[in-house]
Amino acid sequence: MEEEDSIINLQERLTAAMHDGETKKALELMPEIHPAELAAAYESLPEEERAALLTLIPAETLPAFLQQLPVADAVTILGEMKDAPLAAVLDEISDDVLVDLLQEMPPTQRGHTFHLLSDARRREARELLHYPEDTAGGRMTTAFATVEEDMTAREAIGALRKVADEAEMLARIYVVDHEGLLLGKVRLRDLTFANPEQLIEELNDHDIRAVLATADQEKAVRMMSKYDMLTLPVVDDDGRILGIITPDDALDIQEEESTEDLERQSGIAGETTDESYLNTPVLRQVRRRLGWIVSLGFLGLISGCVIYSYQNQLNAIFALTIYMPMIVAAGGNTGGQAATMVIRAMSLGEFSPAAVMRVAWKELRVGLMLGTLLSVCMMLQIFLLRPAFMQLEGDNVMRFAATVGIALLTQITASTLIGAILPIGARAMKLDPAVIASPAITTIVDATGLLIYLNLAKSILHL
Amino acid sequence: MEEEDSIINLQERLTAAMHDGETKKALELMPEIHPAELAAAYESLPEEERAALLTLIPAETLPAFLQQLPVADAVTILGEMKDAPLAAVLDEISDDVLVDLLQEMPPTQRGHTFHLLSDARRREARELLHYPEDTAGGRMTTAFATVEEDMTAREAIGALRKVADEAEMLARIYVVDHEGLLLGKVRLRDLTFANPEQLIEELNDHDIRAVLATADQEKAVRMMSKYDMLTLPVVDDDGRILGIITPDDALDIQEEESTEDLERQSGIAGETTDESYLNTPVLRQVRRRLGWIVSLGFLGLISGCVIYSYQNQLNAIFALTIYMPMIVAAGGNTGGQAATMVIRAMSLGEFSPAAVMRVAWKELRVGLMLGTLLSVCMMLQIFLLRPAFMQLEGDNVMRFAATVGIALLTQITASTLIGAILPIGARAMKLDPAVIASPAITTIVDATGLLIYLNLAKSILHL
Repeated sequence: MEEEDSIINLQERLTAAMHDGETKKALELMPEIHPAELAAAYESLPEEERAALLTLIPAETLPAFLQQLPVADAVTILGEMKDAPLAAVLDEISDDVLVDLLQEMPPTQRGHTFHLLSDARRREARELLHYPEDTAGGRMTTAFATVEEDMTAREAIGALRKVADEAEMLARIYVVDHEGLLLGKVRLRDLTFANPEQLIEELNDHDIRAVLATADQEKAVRMMSKYDMLTLPVVDDDGRILGIITPDDALDIQEEESTEDLERQSGIAGETTDESYLNTPVLRQVRRRLGWIVSLGFLGLISGCVIYSYQNQLNAIFALTIYMPMIVAAGGNTGGQAATMVIRAMSLGEFSPAAVMRVAWKELRVGLMLGTLLSVCMMLQIFLLRPAFMQLEGDNVMRFAATVGIALLTQITASTLIGAILPIGARAMKLDPAVIASPAITTIVDATGLLIYLNLAKSILHL
Repeated sequence: MEEEDSIINLQERLTAAMHDGETKKALELMPEIHPAELAAAYESLPEEERAALLTLIPAETLPAFLQQLPVADAVTILGEMKDAPLAAVLDEISDDVLVDLLQEMPPTQRGHTFHLLSDARRREARELLHYPEDTAGGRMTTAFATVEEDMTAREAIGALRKVADEAEMLARIYVVDHEGLLLGKVRLRDLTFANPEQLIEELNDHDIRAVLATADQEKAVRMMSKYDMLTLPVVDDDGRILGIITPDDALDIQEEESTEDLERQSGIAGETTDESYLNTPVLRQVRRRLGWIVSLGFLGLISGCVIYSYQNQLNAIFALTIYMPMIVAAGGNTGGQAATMVIRAMSLGEFSPAAVMRVAWKELRVGLMLGTLLSVCMMLQIFLLRPAFMQLEGDNVMRFAATVGIALLTQITASTLIGAILPIGARAMKLDPAVIASPAITTIVDATGLLIYLNLAKSILHL
C-alpha cells in the first residue's frame, strides 16, 4: 500500500534534491515519480531551480508533465522549446489540453504552434477553438470511441482495438448512425461479456442524454452529478456527438466553479485560473480585489453621512453609539448567511427564480426568529448589566431597550430578506447570483440599519 | 439528442400531473422517467402529493428512486414499508447508500432493518458502519472487482462475468494476492484486447496508490483529482483492499466539501446535509445560523464601547463619523478576501501552515497596495469635494485627510494580514481553517480599526 503521505515524500524528495543542487539524486527519482507530483514539485521551486529541473525531465515524460502544469507555465515552457521536440510533445498532448494551451498563447506563438501540428490535429484544434473555455465544447475531449448499430459485438471489439490507444475512455462507447447522430451507448463490459455475434442494436441502452457544446460547463457537471453518469456526450444542435466530458474534467470543472463562487462572495472579481495561490503575482491579486474594495469604500461613506446627520440625537444620548456597530453588523452577518444559502442552492440547481416567494417566506421566518432571539438577548443585557455610564433613568431605560430591540429585529429581518432576494434577482436578470457579493449586501444593509436605529431613537426617546 | 431542458420537462410534467391529481398521466410517465428526476419531482411536492406519488412508483424502480433521495426522506419512506417489500428493496440498494441510511435511522428502525438483511449483507453493513460518514471508508462501495496475478486474461474475464452484475465499476479491476493485498490494477480494456493466455501479472500496472479507510473523504477526492484516477482503492492498515471510491461519489464529496467551506465562511455552523434548501425546516436553518449571530452580536458591543469612549474627540469634530464606517468596513472586506484566498488554497492542498511566512509576505504587499490606493482615493475626495459641512479650515483639512488616509492604510494592511494568518493558525491547530468565518474576522478588525482611527484623530488633530 502506498499512502498519499509517502507520495508527498517523493515529491518532497525531488524538491529537496533540487534545492541542494543534487542533480543525480533528482534524476534517480524520475522513473518513479508521477507526472502530477513532478508538476507539483516544479511549481514549488524558484525560477533557476525550475530551469534546472526542466533539463532533467525525460522526453517521454514531458507531455504528461506539461498537461499537469498550470496552463500559463506550460505555455512558457513550450515557447522556449526547439521545433523538433516541440512537435513531438504537441503530438502527445491530449486535444482538450492542447486547445487550452492554444487559447492562452500570444498570437505569434499560436501561429507557430499551429504550423507544427499534423493536418488532422490542426483541423481538430481549429474546431475545438470555436467553443469558449467555459462551455461544454471547450472542456470536451474528442478522443472517444463510437460503434454503429449494425455491428456485432465481435466487430465492435475489433474496431475498438484499433482506437484503444487513442481513446481516453473506453468504459462508455457511444452508438451512432452513419452521420454521427447519437443513438445511445454500450458499456465495454457489455461487449466483453456478450455473445460475439450479438448486434450492437440489442446492447444499445438508447440513452441519448447529452449536453449541447455551447452549454455552460457547469451545466455539464450538474447533469453528470444528477444522473451519476461516468462520461457525458457533448452534441451539436443536430444531435451529432462531438466529444465527451470525462470524470476527471468533471471534478476540475466543479472545483473551478466552487472556487469562483467562494471568491465572488468575498468580492473577488475576475476569472479563477489554475495557478496556485502562492504562484499568483501580487499585482494580479490586487487587481482582482481592488474593484470591490474601492466601490464599497465609497458606498461606505453613505453610512457615515447617516451618522453625521443624526449628530444632535447622538449628542443627546451618546450611549446610543454603543449599540450602533452591533446592529449594523448583525444585518451584514444575517444577510450574508441568507445570501450564501440561496446562492449555493441556486448554483446546485435546486430552484429557479420562480421560487422567489417560497424563499422569501422561508427567510422571513428565519429572519424573524434570529431577530427576536438576538433582540431579547440584547434587551436583557441592557436591563441586567445596565452600565452606569449610560446615565439613563427609570422610564428611559425601557425606552432605550425598546429602541435597540426593535431596531435589531427590523434590521435582521430586513437584511435576511435582502440577502436572499438580491441573488435571486441577479439570476432572474441572467447574472451570476454570486456577483451580489456578501460585502455588497453588508454595505447596503449597514446604511439602512443605521437609518432605522437612529430614527427609532428619535421617536421612542423623543430626541 | 435529448437536452437537459426536455428532461426537466419530464420532471416538471410529473410534478404538474401530481398537482392536478392526474394519476393516470403520472403513471404513464413512470417507464420513461429517470430515478433522479423522479426523486427531484418528489422533493418538490407537498406532503400529501408525495404520499400519492409513492403509491405510483413501480416496485422495480423503488430502490433506484430511494438512492437518489436525501437520506432523511428515504429513511422515512423505509420506516413506513411492510416487511416483505422492505426486504426486497434493501436487497437492491447499493452497500454505501445502505450504510448511510442505517446511520441516519433511529435505533429501533435500524435494528429492524438489520434483521431483514441477508447474512452476507448484514456482515458487510456492520463492517462499513465502523467508518464515520465523512471518511474514505464511510464513502466507499464494496462492490468492486478483483483478479489474481496468476490468472490468465481468459480466466479473469470468466471470473468477472460472474460478478459483472454486482460490481459498480468494472473499468478498473484490482489485482490482489491471496490475502487481498493490493498489488495494482488492470483496465477492462487490457483484458478485452489481450491475448487470452496472457497472465494478469504482465498486464498489472503495479500502481498501488490508495487511501486509508480512516482518512478524511476530502483527502480521497484530492488524490483522485491530482492523479486523474477513475476509481480510488480504499485499504486497511495492512494494505488490503476494502472498497473503492467511484467517480460519482467523488463529485458528491467535492460538492459537499465546498458547500461546507462556503457556509463556514458565512458563519453557518453544523453539518451540510443532502437535503435541499427549500426542504430544510426553518428551525434547523435558525439553529445553524444562530450561534455566530449571537456571539458576533456581543463581540460587536466592543466596537460600540470604543466609539463611546472617544465621545469627546467625536464631539469636537463630528465630521470624523463620516469616515468611521468606511474605514471599519474596508478592514472587514479586505480581511475577508484574504481569508477566502488562503482558506481555499489550503483546502485544495496548495500549501501547509509551514508556508505562513510566504503567505504573510504576499498578503502584506497586497494589503499595502490596496490600502495605499484606497487611501489616496479618500484623501483626494476630502480635498476635492471637501463638504462645506465639515467646518474645517486650512491646516486642519490636511490633518483631517492625513488621519483618514493613515487610518485606512493601517487598517487595510493589518486586516489583510489578520485575514490571511488566522486561518493558517487554525489549520496549524488541526482545526478546519474555515471555522475562522469571515464575519468573525470582520468583527475583530472592526474594533481595532476604530481604535486606530480615533487614536490617530486624537494625536494628529490635537483633540
